[in-house]
Amino acid sequence: MREFELLRHVYAANRLLPSEVVVPPGDDMAAIRLTDRNLLVAVDQVIEGRHVVIDEDPALVGRKAVARNLSDVAAMAARPVATVASVALPKRYGEARSLALFEGVRATADLFGCPLIGGDTAIHHDGSAPLVLSVTILAAPAWPGARVVTRRGGQVGDGVYVTGLLGGSLEPGGGGRHLHFSPRLNEAMALLELLGERLHSMIDVSDGVGRDAAHLTGERTEILLASASIPTNGGLPWQRGLGDGEDYELLFTATGAVPTKLAGVPITRIGTVMDRTSEIDVRVTEGDQTLDASAFGWEHAD
Amino acid sequence: MREFELLRHVYAANRLLPSEVVVPPGDDMAAIRLTDRNLLVAVDQVIEGRHVVIDEDPALVGRKAVARNLSDVAAMAARPVATVASVALPKRYGEARSLALFEGVRATADLFGCPLIGGDTAIHHDGSAPLVLSVTILAAPAWPGARVVTRRGGQVGDGVYVTGLLGGSLEPGGGGRHLHFSPRLNEAMALLELLGERLHSMIDVSDGVGRDAAHLTGERTEILLASASIPTNGGLPWQRGLGDGEDYELLFTATGAVPTKLAGVPITRIGTVMDRTSEIDVRVTEGDQTLDASAFGWEHAD
Repeated sequence: MREFELLRHVYAANRLLPSEVVVPPGDDMAAIRLTDRNLLVAVDQVIEGRHVVIDEDPALVGRKAVARNLSDVAAMAARPVATVASVALPKRYGEARSLALFEGVRATADLFGCPLIGGDTAIHHDGSAPLVLSVTILAAPAWPGARVVTRRGGQVGDGVYVTGLLGGSLEPGGGGRHLHFSPRLNEAMALLELLGERLHSMIDVSDGVGRDAAHLTGERTEILLASASIPTNGGLPWQRGLGDGEDYELLFTATGAVPTKLAGVPITRIGTVMDRTSEIDVRVTEGDQTLDASAFGWEHAD
Repeated sequence: MREFELLRHVYAANRLLPSEVVVPPGDDMAAIRLTDRNLLVAVDQVIEGRHVVIDEDPALVGRKAVARNLSDVAAMAARPVATVASVALPKRYGEARSLALFEGVRATADLFGCPLIGGDTAIHHDGSAPLVLSVTILAAPAWPGARVVTRRGGQVGDGVYVTGLLGGSLEPGGGGRHLHFSPRLNEAMALLELLGERLHSMIDVSDGVGRDAAHLTGERTEILLASASIPTNGGLPWQRGLGDGEDYELLFTATGAVPTKLAGVPITRIGTVMDRTSEIDVRVTEGDQTLDASAFGWEHAD
């Protein structure tokens, strides 16, 4: 199967293309009609040897590449509308795995309402070159006129909250959560609807709360976390909750009352936005000590 | 320099971000405000060993990756509005080359009015893994309410036209045209304005006219080219004009009068859309013979 035919085969499964697709995949560009003039865009790649290993199920690798992007959409409290993907395929990958990979991308995109409408595929000439899958996602405000929630909006006195449980995502015992997590799209839009202007800043947790929380601080603010409040998976210690990463949960700051659950998903207050007192963005209290929380994160994946 | 800092460094040069950028790069997603609800999107990748060689000027490699996409925008007679890019960097590439590559992407995107507003960068773990640069481009109709020109609209009796000269783009003597060509954006929009509904179908020439012209045919149409009319670079034989590829010229079909020049760029009629008589999409006449034109193209680059 030639490279071009591979993509055509994948697109053919896209039975649910919404009416807003004006020019379907297969032309020089695809065209869609948006419901709003405001458009969001992000790109994220998955690289063999770096983010995934070659013997992982290719459909799950495709899923993860899209889901990581969808987690970014959730972090803006936005709504995904379309997906494009490019893949550099290892020579040894073969047709069945290539199709499974792209089908994982397509099916995940379809499931979350942002159909795959463009792609590019090429096979490496170099025999040992690894898989590189790059996914670009397009999104719109949650509803017409809705605002998007950026990172830098935290205000002194805000509570710092996280959805779900943290840590252990990459462990064999973690059930491969990093491969099949559900991006918190609906939770994010519900938070925007519930909290409105009280939802001040939001990000998704990919590098670990200990590092990612720093993006919610500003020149005049820092964050103080309480170690005892960090909600972890399977009784992991709080240090792992802060540091493991690949959680793809929402981390946000808000003022006023915040629900403790949203359709079954726990929402936990783990800290407070404070006046800045030092160069450390995020500190965590344990007993009477305060530690630099970034020490528990790692530079990961991107 | 950490991967994240590399991108921040590149964005900092983006002094000409238009006011339509609502959320600049650096958040989970960038956001722009479009002038129109119709949006076009395409993705294209450049792979070391496949499309470029490692010792090429990294700024020109970055340029080419964007320009290939812009050529797709031109092929729709559309207007580019924004760019995102992801790059998997070889370990040996080093910081200076990485910056030069991304700067080539950024500066080219800026120059053509579609600023780089999102990116992802990662360094391969595998020591010999090649550069993979993926560029996604967003575009809008040429003006509010303008149509976009798709591939499949050729009608029996249409003339088949090409801009510029063909062949030799990859030759050492070709001056590296495949690395620094100017995408025919303005020419395409001018053709749409001049010809209006008479401009029936358009594509850009990447694989060679002999192959690409097939995309302008339909179930009931085929194309007949006249070998003597193929305009080539530097006196190359017509076979090279049809087959070399990487020309990034516009190939279109139209009815009625078509100018022979557009601001100095030659426009040449090279054939006619005919009733389909065979399974061969594109034939070329030479003397009293007709040959399958796809025999002179090659499966290239994507």
